[in-house]
Amino acid sequence: VSDQVYEVLFVPGGQTASVPSGELLTNAALAAGVPLVAPCGGRGRCSKCRVVVEEGECSPPTEVEQGLLSSDELARGIRLACQTAVRGPLRVYVEPQAEVVGKKPLEAQLLADLVPGPAVRRVAVELPPPTLSDQRSDFRRLQDVTAESLGLAEADLAALRALPQAVRVGQWTVSATACEGRLVAVAAGSNGAHPLGAAVDIGTTTVVGYVVDLVTGEQVGSGAAVNPQGQHGADVISRTEYANSNPDGLLQLQREAAGVINQVLNQALASCRGCHEQLLEVVVVGNTCMQHLALGLAPRYLAEAPYVPVTAELTVVDAGELGVAMAGSGRVVMLPSIAGYVGADTVGVILATRMTERHEPVLAIDIGTNGEVALWDGARLWCASCAAGPAFEGAQIEHGMRAAPGAIERISLDDGDLSVATIGDQPAAGICGSGLFDGLAVMLETGLVDAMGRLAPPEQLGELPGALGNRLAGADHQRQVVLVSAGESANGQAVCLTQKDVREVQLAKGAVRAAIEILLKEAGLQVRDLAEVLIAGAFGSYIQPASALRMGLLPAVAVEVIRGVGNAAGAGAMMALLSMDERQRACQIARQAEHVELAQRADFQQMFMETMLFM
Amino acid sequence: VSDQVYEVLFVPGGQTASVPSGELLTNAALAAGVPLVAPCGGRGRCSKCRVVVEEGECSPPTEVEQGLLSSDELARGIRLACQTAVRGPLRVYVEPQAEVVGKKPLEAQLLADLVPGPAVRRVAVELPPPTLSDQRSDFRRLQDVTAESLGLAEADLAALRALPQAVRVGQWTVSATACEGRLVAVAAGSNGAHPLGAAVDIGTTTVVGYVVDLVTGEQVGSGAAVNPQGQHGADVISRTEYANSNPDGLLQLQREAAGVINQVLNQALASCRGCHEQLLEVVVVGNTCMQHLALGLAPRYLAEAPYVPVTAELTVVDAGELGVAMAGSGRVVMLPSIAGYVGADTVGVILATRMTERHEPVLAIDIGTNGEVALWDGARLWCASCAAGPAFEGAQIEHGMRAAPGAIERISLDDGDLSVATIGDQPAAGICGSGLFDGLAVMLETGLVDAMGRLAPPEQLGELPGALGNRLAGADHQRQVVLVSAGESANGQAVCLTQKDVREVQLAKGAVRAAIEILLKEAGLQVRDLAEVLIAGAFGSYIQPASALRMGLLPAVAVEVIRGVGNAAGAGAMMALLSMDERQRACQIARQAEHVELAQRADFQQMFMETMLFM
Repeated sequence: VSDQVYEVLFVPGGQTASVPSGELLTNAALAAGVPLVAPCGGRGRCSKCRVVVEEGECSPPTEVEQGLLSSDELARGIRLACQTAVRGPLRVYVEPQAEVVGKKPLEAQLLADLVPGPAVRRVAVELPPPTLSDQRSDFRRLQDVTAESLGLAEADLAALRALPQAVRVGQWTVSATACEGRLVAVAAGSNGAHPLGAAVDIGTTTVVGYVVDLVTGEQVGSGAAVNPQGQHGADVISRTEYANSNPDGLLQLQREAAGVINQVLNQALASCRGCHEQLLEVVVVGNTCMQHLALGLAPRYLAEAPYVPVTAELTVVDAGELGVAMAGSGRVVMLPSIAGYVGADTVGVILATRMTERHEPVLAIDIGTNGEVALWDGARLWCASCAAGPAFEGAQIEHGMRAAPGAIERISLDDGDLSVATIGDQPAAGICGSGLFDGLAVMLETGLVDAMGRLAPPEQLGELPGALGNRLAGADHQRQVVLVSAGESANGQAVCLTQKDVREVQLAKGAVRAAIEILLKEAGLQVRDLAEVLIAGAFGSYIQPASALRMGLLPAVAVEVIRGVGNAAGAGAMMALLSMDERQRACQIARQAEHVELAQRADFQQMFMETMLFM
Repeated sequence: VSDQVYEVLFVPGGQTASVPSGELLTNAALAAGVPLVAPCGGRGRCSKCRVVVEEGECSPPTEVEQGLLSSDELARGIRLACQTAVRGPLRVYVEPQAEVVGKKPLEAQLLADLVPGPAVRRVAVELPPPTLSDQRSDFRRLQDVTAESLGLAEADLAALRALPQAVRVGQWTVSATACEGRLVAVAAGSNGAHPLGAAVDIGTTTVVGYVVDLVTGEQVGSGAAVNPQGQHGADVISRTEYANSNPDGLLQLQREAAGVINQVLNQALASCRGCHEQLLEVVVVGNTCMQHLALGLAPRYLAEAPYVPVTAELTVVDAGELGVAMAGSGRVVMLPSIAGYVGADTVGVILATRMTERHEPVLAIDIGTNGEVALWDGARLWCASCAAGPAFEGAQIEHGMRAAPGAIERISLDDGDLSVATIGDQPAAGICGSGLFDGLAVMLETGLVDAMGRLAPPEQLGELPGALGNRLAGADHQRQVVLVSAGESANGQAVCLTQKDVREVQLAKGAVRAAIEILLKEAGLQVRDLAEVLIAGAFGSYIQPASALRMGLLPAVAVEVIRGVGNAAGAGAMMALLSMDERQRACQIARQAEHVELAQRADFQQMFMETMLFM
């Protein structure tokens, strides 16, 4: 490792990063703002951070890579970014991923009719110069002129210290920035930099951030990074255990949360040439545990009955207290949550979809490792959460992967056999959530799997068309359906769906469906009463509504009422950033929501037993 | 200088300080909480920090001391504290000074009927433990139970972090401390330490602080120290120049202000065994320049026409931002000021005297280097300031000194000659403000000085009683009145009042009186309309009302309407600390006051020419 700094060019996006010799490609990608997801946290286990080093010098393949990549792949320059260090100027190909950065049409739609009115406002004003008969203080003078626009009640010390020079250098024309009636910045003249804000969604796996110009209301930058807390466990329970059982565990998790927020904000600011001094407010959503960890609040009692958060209220903290790099007066706003397992992300979904402004019943579900369900009956709001497990995200699934090029995303029945389509028409490397759903739906239809979730045993092969029967292999618990043969796959390995995979999906969809049924029961509603069923999250953007219905994830609504709403949690954070009215509404939603604790319900287990089945 | 630490015992007060060998006695006195005023800032010029080293080893007399003290004095152990270093355990006599520490009856009276209602409140409550059917967060649970008593709307991060353990260790009994609806501290159980607050009066010369138990409302400690900014000049103008002309001047002055506030608070906390973690709010008054310097706000534009402050509003700052040692969530509250030369100290006087709650006209004056005058007519409030100069504090007066033992405090006519009385009946060492007033009153009566302020010239000696005539010495501008002969004085030097001294007093009293007259004119009031004339500050506690009238400092009111109110500014700060209603009232006073800028008045100079005379 020398002191040399090299430029890494990422194609086809064209992003670049200058990094010191010896830096890993994963870090170079983060620095360049290239989304590169490494679910294993860079430990060289998941082989999902594959890139192609097209030109330039890098470190030789590690033992880990030699184990996970074929010699042919290595010869073609394929490397794992988490194992590869920069040794000179590089040109690196990264397969374009399902877009996790930037607003997607679904969210853009949610934000379309937002009336801006952020906490942070900036105006340029001309002040009447003082005279012996008008000796108002500099601050009072500014207060009086901006009474309507800023409503200044107080001032940050730094802004007060800058004020006398700013007004005089600007010859009594000054730009003033206020946050909720507090003067936070002043600059001479009328042409200062605009204040920026950010909306951040801290996921258990991925952290995404958007930067917004708070004067124009426009999104100007974005960034994404893997949550480094993943190294202590993929889910909230294992991270809670880490916090509980290590003396500095909570502190470490808090620092990691702040670190990844900083990474995402750095990327987002770099993408719009903004600077930290402009960044005045960050609105954060996430599940209750992620918010606790980001604040450094012990998650211990979230994980133990009766699952009580330290706070579920909207919480405003000085950025400096959290270690988030912003302007000196910058602050982090945690949106409120509803319960220990129904977090601010769900509040964001409810806010962004405006479901509680409807006069008819609406159901919203957000499925990740944890599944959250919200039901609005036109007057009251119920919420519940269930442990869906990570199956829908492709984890715990033998050949599961995230929705990236090469993932099987669609499976249909074509001429008596299964037909698969992959993202980007690449050779199949695995199966993602939507492919899993399609596959199971088709397998149910054809009898490859029965209503109990059993893959057809050898003695039933005669009842299946030959092409389908040929896809079945193994016995009992080892039984599996071959989707793509070893010869046709990306890596010489067959892509299969196993009996265990089916069981994982059953557990996951059963839990979500049971939660839905309990809420419907609680609200005294029938399935036919639902005017709309909203599916939030990346998952909702990809699955086919018909497959979700066939699988029994959703109750039997008409397929037309099912609508994917994309990253509605992030959109909700953005709305709360851009409008104090919406922020207020988020607090109302959190207070209004009636949390149904499924763990307490005698009827939940019974329901779950039923909803696990495919019927 | 060794690493040895020695105890210094101060008598007759009995205070002690443990200081390292080599420490100056001035610092030992500060550490011990012994008020010891050194107007020259410890540069060995004023010789006013005299002490008697009764026992123990200290450094030998410096050249400065050999110049300022006689060999007889040195032989008796008299030393200048600012020149004397500790070399072993010491017993040091410090003449008891006019009490600057602790509430005096005058202020106690002002605070007598205060209804407590501070910003910082603490309650001990029992919370209902959470269950699966009551999953409110820890914070919400606390909010709900303390809705009436604390009205919690938000929480400090540190308090939130401590909350889950506090409620569970205390088995759902918890002590919660809030500052204006913000949770700032929690502790398990009901028996935590009480929160403390402090009121600080930052004088140009002296800083005084009182510590109060915010639960009981009782004053529990106090401290005082010399403002170390004095080393950059005795008055606000020279300090402003220092801030203007040195690159880090303002920063340095801010640090000195924070340092002396810390000194005073350390003393006050030590005197009640309080700790910094308990100290949650400090309310500060001072003149506008002192407040600017304490906040690190440039005082430049206070000193230049049109004399505009950066801010005159109530300003709340995190203690950490100022470098004031308090609890992590501690904050410093600067009371509002009225104008560049009518500060929060005047607001404190108006607040504490409740003059604006009267239905009849009241005049208040506060005289220091700067004189502030406030006039209430029963409905409107006018304020003005004038440069009184330091004459009334004994500075710029040939043998002037502060009100300390040996100071001539009373002068009367006895059997055709002047008769003097000193504080503590000590041999006369100088003359303090009240003595100055008495002396001039008597001299005016006897013809020793005429209405123009001229000491009787030699040719008029025949008209004076012999005893008086003999007291006159010198010619023209060198003319002086000998009050105490060299043989009878404390230091072998005659104590005199010089022609120049008379001129200084004329300038000072003329300015104050002219300000009073302008305000009366502004309000359309006659002198006879005044129901009361309040004199704030130490000065007001010592002068004889009749002398102030004879001198023409005050207009011709009946002597009975004149009332000294002591350190009313400090009392006002205490009231604003103990009651949010009073704090609100302070803001109303500052907003309501109509500042009359004398520099702008054509009639002021004319009035001043007249009021300088003794008639």
